[in-house]
Amino acid sequence: MSDIERHGVTARYADAVVYNGVIHLVEVPASSGADITLQTREVLASLGRQLDELGSDRTRILMATIYLTDLADAPGMNAEWEAWLPAGSAPARACVQVAGLADPGWRIEIALTAAR
Amino acid sequence: MSDIERHGVTARYADAVVYNGVIHLVEVPASSGADITLQTREVLASLGRQLDELGSDRTRILMATIYLTDLADAPGMNAEWEAWLPAGSAPARACVQVAGLADPGWRIEIALTAAR
Amino acid sequence: MSDIERHGVTARYADAVVYNGVIHLVEVPASSGADITLQTREVLASLGRQLDELGSDRTRILMATIYLTDLADAPGMNAEWEAWLPAGSAPARACVQVAGLADPGWRIEIALTAAR
Repeated sequence: MSDIERHGVTARYADAVVYNGVIHLVEVPASSGADITLQTREVLASLGRQLDELGSDRTRILMATIYLTDLADAPGMNAEWEAWLPAGSAPARACVQVAGLADPGWRIEIALTAAR
Repeated sequence: MSDIERHGVTARYADAVVYNGVIHLVEVPASSGADITLQTREVLASLGRQLDELGSDRTRILMATIYLTDLADAPGMNAEWEAWLPAGSAPARACVQVAGLADPGWRIEIALTAAR
Repeated sequence: MSDIERHGVTARYADAVVYNGVIHLVEVPASSGADITLQTREVLASLGRQLDELGSDRTRILMATIYLTDLADAPGMNAEWEAWLPAGSAPARACVQVAGLADPGWRIEIALTAAR
């Protein structure tokens, strides 16, 4: 199994899994109940930090899936997202409103794949 | 970064990202407010055109995630989907009803991974 | 096209697609209308069996996306999920509540990528 790297493994999920040069990451907000601006900043800051630690960075994201609980949050999320992404490095991106996230105080969850 | 190809990059998303022989694509309808048949045709036509341009084609799709805003649209979407896919080339496929897509007139969004 | 393996191909989807050492799988419950415990067991048993048949196993999952129709089912799903995963092998995982799945009696759908 040494060909698969797992980081931050719990019984339920891993913070990051790396295989064949591709990193899989999912992040949720630290501040349950906060507004979309803070929650998006928290999620992106954590994703960026993890990418850096894994030998990648925010210029190397391949695909993002952004789950929002309220599309009225899309402008606030997009403002943070666009400020966070270096020019020319946007990934393919799906963005959908879901009926709920695992914590009722979360407004956003982001899944990424990135190249190491 | 020359190992990652990005096509149609904006500040928010790329139309397509290619890495290590795998293409990531997400598409939404051109005709906001149109019915599911037209919207599905538009999305699939665009995905097919992009796959062709990237040196792949609709026989080389690995995984599809289909987001619908109304499951009553599933039969209409499936009819277009099955007509579009060459025999024997269907990908793994998740199909879910979401609470909303970024434009209220969109009824479908499709994310694909494909092999070049 | 012999570089892409497809298993259980219908006009609409494949049970599994393998490319470049990565397996894509999506599974839904056999027992429409059953409770979350049985539906989760069915989905995980099928995924495990398919992984085994494809030369992988449940210790080699890279990323999971779990779609639930009711977050009240999350504890029941998580109990089955954690019992099913061998220690130290949890994947990156997104878990969201959707507005519906293709069969109104399904409470869960799981998409996986795994390493062969």
